[in-house]
Amino acid sequence: MPHINLPEGYPGIRSLFMYNPETALPLNNLVQTLLHDKNTSTLTPGERELIATYTSGLNECKYCANTHGAIAKHQLNGNENVVKDVLAKNIATADVSDKMKALLQIASKVQRGGKNVTEADIENARKEGATDKEIHDTVLIAAAFCMFNRYVDGLATWAPDDASVYDAIGKQRATEGYMTKPFIVK
Amino acid sequence: MPHINLPEGYPGIRSLFMYNPETALPLNNLVQTLLHDKNTSTLTPGERELIATYTSGLNECKYCANTHGAIAKHQLNGNENVVKDVLAKNIATADVSDKMKALLQIASKVQRGGKNVTEADIENARKEGATDKEIHDTVLIAAAFCMFNRYVDGLATWAPDDASVYDAIGKQRATEGYMTKPFIVK
Repeated sequence: MPHINLPEGYPGIRSLFMYNPETALPLNNLVQTLLHDKNTSTLTPGERELIATYTSGLNECKYCANTHGAIAKHQLNGNENVVKDVLAKNIATADVSDKMKALLQIASKVQRGGKNVTEADIENARKEGATDKEIHDTVLIAAAFCMFNRYVDGLATWAPDDASVYDAIGKQRATEGYMTKPFIVK
Repeated sequence: MPHINLPEGYPGIRSLFMYNPETALPLNNLVQTLLHDKNTSTLTPGERELIATYTSGLNECKYCANTHGAIAKHQLNGNENVVKDVLAKNIATADVSDKMKALLQIASKVQRGGKNVTEADIENARKEGATDKEIHDTVLIAAAFCMFNRYVDGLATWAPDDASVYDAIGKQRATEGYMTKPFIVK
């Protein structure tokens, strides 16, 4: 049961967006530009969603990991295996580029705290072709999900068990982005 | 030295806002409503800045801890001692209400991960008079600074050593809020 009295029928962060619209707007603007818009990053929306999925998995946030895993799958033409590998933290063998492996390594350092990112992590990403902007985007996506995961779990919001719920949210967000109406389960 | 090529003369997150204006806008909108606006919370701006300061101290983020400590001081009529106690993690003896002590305890749990917040933490805050909205605001402020701290340190931005720099930023932000031009040191 959530720690505070939240609107019923909305899972995870959606219940918090309904509860406090003042912060919902900038938070959705942030993920829209960070994850969804095509002209804001040279990483694809699918790659950016995988970074969000991986960070949420490392933080053991069931709602965010399943939601962004489902969005990533829909952004990556239904590639379910790569999402499963990222959720299982099998990065070495996951079906992603060597550049993405280096960026996911940076994301895992950010998840443990910003100071854990080393010069060697950055050099490795550059060696695999990552630009400054791609390193920037990776750090901010991982940092942002350290916020979203804590917001969702710190207030003990409801995380559905039904995989089809996450798939429906994933399809909606991959198609429409983050600025449309929240997904209602009931 | 920063991990990526950032504009010179801007400390901490200000260099990142100059580097990537697309995400600077929602991030500043978020702190404006979360920390500064008077009509968005029943916690005072000074109390909300103390939660940001405490979380940043727990994350050992020099730039954010010093900046928000200075903003808190200016929001709290120059009460430097309470800021020093919060930065030194002396919450038990700090010059804050029992409600704020209970909320800072929740913030410290969020800093370690959302699932660490217990029913007992929530009950204790309620016993001291905290409302649902104040618990919500505390969790989101602590969560947001787990993002800002990681963004600032994950890219190894420049944190000035000079206390007068933080005091000047603190005075500016306490007065003008977060939507005005960045503070330039050079």
